[in-house]
Amino acid sequence: MGKKPLIVINFKTYSESMGDRAVKMAKYCNEITLESGVEVIVCPQIPDIYRVANSVKIPVFSQHIDGAGAGSHTGHITAECVMDAGASGTLINHSEKRLLLSEIDSAIQYAKKTGLKTIVCTNNIPVTSAAAMLGPEFVAIEPPELIGSGIPVSKADPDIVRESVMAVKKITSHVEVLCGAGISKGDDVAAALSLGTSGVLLASGVIKAKDPKAALYDLVGKI
Amino acid sequence: MGKKPLIVINFKTYSESMGDRAVKMAKYCNEITLESGVEVIVCPQIPDIYRVANSVKIPVFSQHIDGAGAGSHTGHITAECVMDAGASGTLINHSEKRLLLSEIDSAIQYAKKTGLKTIVCTNNIPVTSAAAMLGPEFVAIEPPELIGSGIPVSKADPDIVRESVMAVKKITSHVEVLCGAGISKGDDVAAALSLGTSGVLLASGVIKAKDPKAALYDLVGKI
Amino acid sequence: MGKKPLIVINFKTYSESMGDRAVKMAKYCNEITLESGVEVIVCPQIPDIYRVANSVKIPVFSQHIDGAGAGSHTGHITAECVMDAGASGTLINHSEKRLLLSEIDSAIQYAKKTGLKTIVCTNNIPVTSAAAMLGPEFVAIEPPELIGSGIPVSKADPDIVRESVMAVKKITSHVEVLCGAGISKGDDVAAALSLGTSGVLLASGVIKAKDPKAALYDLVGKI
Amino acid sequence: MGKKPLIVINFKTYSESMGDRAVKMAKYCNEITLESGVEVIVCPQIPDIYRVANSVKIPVFSQHIDGAGAGSHTGHITAECVMDAGASGTLINHSEKRLLLSEIDSAIQYAKKTGLKTIVCTNNIPVTSAAAMLGPEFVAIEPPELIGSGIPVSKADPDIVRESVMAVKKITSHVEVLCGAGISKGDDVAAALSLGTSGVLLASGVIKAKDPKAALYDLVGKI
Repeated sequence: MGKKPLIVINFKTYSESMGDRAVKMAKYCNEITLESGVEVIVCPQIPDIYRVANSVKIPVFSQHIDGAGAGSHTGHITAECVMDAGASGTLINHSEKRLLLSEIDSAIQYAKKTGLKTIVCTNNIPVTSAAAMLGPEFVAIEPPELIGSGIPVSKADPDIVRESVMAVKKITSHVEVLCGAGISKGDDVAAALSLGTSGVLLASGVIKAKDPKAALYDLVGKI
Repeated sequence: MGKKPLIVINFKTYSESMGDRAVKMAKYCNEITLESGVEVIVCPQIPDIYRVANSVKIPVFSQHIDGAGAGSHTGHITAECVMDAGASGTLINHSEKRLLLSEIDSAIQYAKKTGLKTIVCTNNIPVTSAAAMLGPEFVAIEPPELIGSGIPVSKADPDIVRESVMAVKKITSHVEVLCGAGISKGDDVAAALSLGTSGVLLASGVIKAKDPKAALYDLVGKI
Repeated sequence: MGKKPLIVINFKTYSESMGDRAVKMAKYCNEITLESGVEVIVCPQIPDIYRVANSVKIPVFSQHIDGAGAGSHTGHITAECVMDAGASGTLINHSEKRLLLSEIDSAIQYAKKTGLKTIVCTNNIPVTSAAAMLGPEFVAIEPPELIGSGIPVSKADPDIVRESVMAVKKITSHVEVLCGAGISKGDDVAAALSLGTSGVLLASGVIKAKDPKAALYDLVGKI
Repeated sequence: MGKKPLIVINFKTYSESMGDRAVKMAKYCNEITLESGVEVIVCPQIPDIYRVANSVKIPVFSQHIDGAGAGSHTGHITAECVMDAGASGTLINHSEKRLLLSEIDSAIQYAKKTGLKTIVCTNNIPVTSAAAMLGPEFVAIEPPELIGSGIPVSKADPDIVRESVMAVKKITSHVEVLCGAGISKGDDVAAALSLGTSGVLLASGVIKAKDPKAALYDLVGKI
């Protein structure tokens, strides 16, 4: 305990959070962090990382990296390059960008070498356990059927969250568990934390909100 | 102990082990099993499973299944269909057919439901541990750089084998460890068993041998 | 003209058309061909090809092949192996099994070398034209949004069919055009032929019909 | 004719051309363009596009885009976002980042809508023709076996270049042909142009050169 809960905002490829609007959205998140003390992380599109990272103090995460390093890997996203652009971490294996098992491992290894933190997204308890064995900083359990549903995983399926936390604890004390899918309210965050997670991962709940800033205030309000 | 060591022969898409030649090769393996008591499993190409399974008594494994079941999945290989064709198990995630982490999990779940045994191929110790968390019957560690090299993993890198066995034992007693890459001699098999594995996975060592039958005899001779 | 229209029945991974039921379904199609003179092609699951091909005289096509030949390609489906199992052709790039552009080319080349006919599935007019440049025997235009919809492409979007036929004719006289998506009635087939296609590709319209044999009779009835 | 030849420099994920070094390398290319009048295009890693595009006047191309637009596509690279970051074009389907046929089509369509120019990389003549049917601005033929070989395609296999140019001309006058693989000298560029191409695509020949600036001068020297 005592540790600050984490709120990870995935900008996806939403037009509401691209380019200048990515910078603006990240600045809102920066303000919220300053005011609330809650740690907010933003995940802009990869070409936007540099701009966003140069505009805010909060951590900027990439939405994806490949399991490739320096070399002949045209079009691949390397840990080193996103870090050089200002990212301090990355999502890996998001449900919209699933990777080979061996690529996830390789991406985590490159990230560790570079100093990039990793959040591996997963879809159920065995996959969460498997991901935890690969040694990322975080796993984020997101039941695919709830993503973008508006129904928070912390209410719809508290067991999957609770059991993911327990499964990971059995394996290691070095991997923290986040949860995602359907999160949009402060209540959802509070519920997620009470189930033993270290925070939440969300996207449309903030980015597609009529008033993203108000949505952010609501999100951190119950912590 | 007391348990019979396992020798898994992967026919790949070698022309030496396709069609009628797959049946012939499988019959050799069947003979060896009868004579030696060593359990040999054959993995013919998927279109050959039916023919091979109808010609031998030893277990026939598929080279691959997808993480898909009955439904709108044109071209996918389902656990149910390979089992109906006569397979009793399958390789999953071979280095030449890597899968998404979530697909490996899904393929194992379909296999379990159908009664198909699974061997998940892996490339290093963390990936082996991750695969073991998904609950297959076997994991098979095969350092990619040694595959087809003629240099047996049991000699070139005994530590990766020994540590894979230890890593998996720490997780569960229900998953056995095989090793592969460069195996071609009875000595390699004996070394693999002495490192704690339940057997070996090989391909060219038998299929591409001048005399596959002699190669098989040599393989089982030191057990 | 004078040429017989073609009806390609994709068995997908439907349980209604797997294993023994694949053989039974193929036999229905065989009867229809004998009685009507319409050429029906069946596409069972890959592990079922051998069994089906040994039970019927009509052409059996694979649902997929990879762009790989003999060699170290574990789990891949080769032209040579499906032909050896009894297939005389194959679907390539079905909407449920999309391939890399370079793989489609490679698969067609392997198929040609082996003597396997190819039907490349496509989703729109430019992709149809691109596929035609690769020299398959057939392209099959299937607008993804209509697949499994019950709304026949020949009615919902006759223009895409007509223009696909024209686009392909402009390129070559060696590639015939099929259409698919939502086809289930003899009227749909007649409409498809009147738009200039050489036949249709369908799945659920027959396989999921209450009475597949009656559905087949209806299909060929208006030709 | 009269048109300026094009030299496209792919920065790959080489460490020599990442981050600040990407900016420096792009500035060299900018100077060369100013001095020689030859059009040089640079393709930095995707997270570097913004920085590079803000430092030079020459065109900056992305190394890759996905066939996805605004929406729920975490980790995907959209035409809109790379353009917003300063790119004016993109490679598509590089041999190190092959795409599905339908994705190439979709990526080109998104690029057209956004105003991004496209160079589709291809591996042989039929694939080049297929790619040309999809309506990019350029196709770039690169025989995979020559990539990074130091043996220029324009010498090793002039026929594949010449025939690619002819094949594309037969289809359309709107698509120009580039060639790549093994290009490093001004002679190679001159040979490529004499074979009917509009320019060349290269990477290590400049980036890995002891003196990249000198390599660039040599490249443009024979035009």
